[in-house]
Amino acid sequence: MSRRCIKLTIQYDGFDYHGWQVQRGKRTIQDELNIAVSSLLGCSVAVHGASRTDAGVSALGQAAVVEIDSPIPTENLARAISGKLPPDIVVTEAVEVRTGFDIIGDAKRKLYRYTICTGTSRPVLDVRHCWYLPRNLDVTQMNAAGERLVGTKDFKSFAAAADKRTTSVRTIYRCDVTPDGEWIYVDVEGNSFLYNMVRNIVGTLVEVGAARMSPGKIDEIIGAKDRTTAGPIAPAAGLCLMWIKY
Amino acid sequence: MSRRCIKLTIQYDGFDYHGWQVQRGKRTIQDELNIAVSSLLGCSVAVHGASRTDAGVSALGQAAVVEIDSPIPTENLARAISGKLPPDIVVTEAVEVRTGFDIIGDAKRKLYRYTICTGTSRPVLDVRHCWYLPRNLDVTQMNAAGERLVGTKDFKSFAAAADKRTTSVRTIYRCDVTPDGEWIYVDVEGNSFLYNMVRNIVGTLVEVGAARMSPGKIDEIIGAKDRTTAGPIAPAAGLCLMWIKY
Repeated sequence: MSRRCIKLTIQYDGFDYHGWQVQRGKRTIQDELNIAVSSLLGCSVAVHGASRTDAGVSALGQAAVVEIDSPIPTENLARAISGKLPPDIVVTEAVEVRTGFDIIGDAKRKLYRYTICTGTSRPVLDVRHCWYLPRNLDVTQMNAAGERLVGTKDFKSFAAAADKRTTSVRTIYRCDVTPDGEWIYVDVEGNSFLYNMVRNIVGTLVEVGAARMSPGKIDEIIGAKDRTTAGPIAPAAGLCLMWIKY
Repeated sequence: MSRRCIKLTIQYDGFDYHGWQVQRGKRTIQDELNIAVSSLLGCSVAVHGASRTDAGVSALGQAAVVEIDSPIPTENLARAISGKLPPDIVVTEAVEVRTGFDIIGDAKRKLYRYTICTGTSRPVLDVRHCWYLPRNLDVTQMNAAGERLVGTKDFKSFAAAADKRTTSVRTIYRCDVTPDGEWIYVDVEGNSFLYNMVRNIVGTLVEVGAARMSPGKIDEIIGAKDRTTAGPIAPAAGLCLMWIKY
């Protein structure tokens, strides 16, 4: 009974990677995991992730599933795989899941955090993990805009044009903008996200924070179902996938 | 009256650099500053730093001096130079100082902070700026050892063998070990430091925290004036130059 489906929880600094997904000739997180797990087990296996994070996006709670046939006890897998990974990727948990577990379809909720730094000089130790935007942003207005995103809506205006999924209806449970000194955190919790959706939301909230757009404009943007009505996309470096609940 | 001596305060993520000091064929912080200032002024100038931080060491308060002949007002220099620097280096302040100001000799006090992470999995977003050491360390014992370093003493045992300065007597004003959840900070404030001194001190304090050495051993190590009596050197990534007072 050593053949098992294993769900991994993964953290990474995505700054130096071309995103999650395997791409020929480019360094990706999925590649590093495939190499690490295959090296550990002595045979070629492939991990499948819950979220295809973009180049430069980090994660503190990515999830992936891998089917393995190995005598290594499940409780030892996280540490054993991590030992084969580069320093900027780590597996924090490995648990057995039922056969047929769907890492994408069975995900119930996800939280993304987007970090903005508004300080007078760029934060050199955190510059890989934030959008450096040295200007005043009206957090109250940004929150008012964020509230208008909460609910089950068609978020087509916030999806990259390349996103060809059948429906662009998603549920956002919360979109909170929290200031902390020079820092602003945008927390977006939803059931599932369209391609570039959080970065497009943040780019739009920044337009509101900079008084180039009113919070009420959000309703118009949602109604338009047209990407060009929303704000510009926020840089990848500020985005972090915090957790996925199953 | 545009010829001036300017003191710069500099922050950097040193992880991707071969240290402060210019070295042929290697990417260093001093090089990047020389290039940025020269490009801004349109002539070749050289900045001179207060501390030759090692490869991988970061700074939130490095100081450097540069003599310039330019109409750019002093209050605009920090932003103008920063605009020419890569994202992981920034000049936070530029002030005019007297001719003959000695960036090394006039420094009165420096603070270095060393960061250790003792968590169960490595902190991927901070792995460039800490020593990841997943084990229990006795902070009370480390502090008892740190207290024995305070004072004006011959720190030859904590200097790299390569350090050939005439005297190895230095004054340490404090050496505090502060726990914060999974993190431990070692703050060492002194009048001046020998080559690798803080990293050798931290490596020794970790021996004490791991109960491989008693706090009282510090007195013996100082008395021995022999590098081999102290603990191993701590990794560069955990070290950060916090400030220099003049």
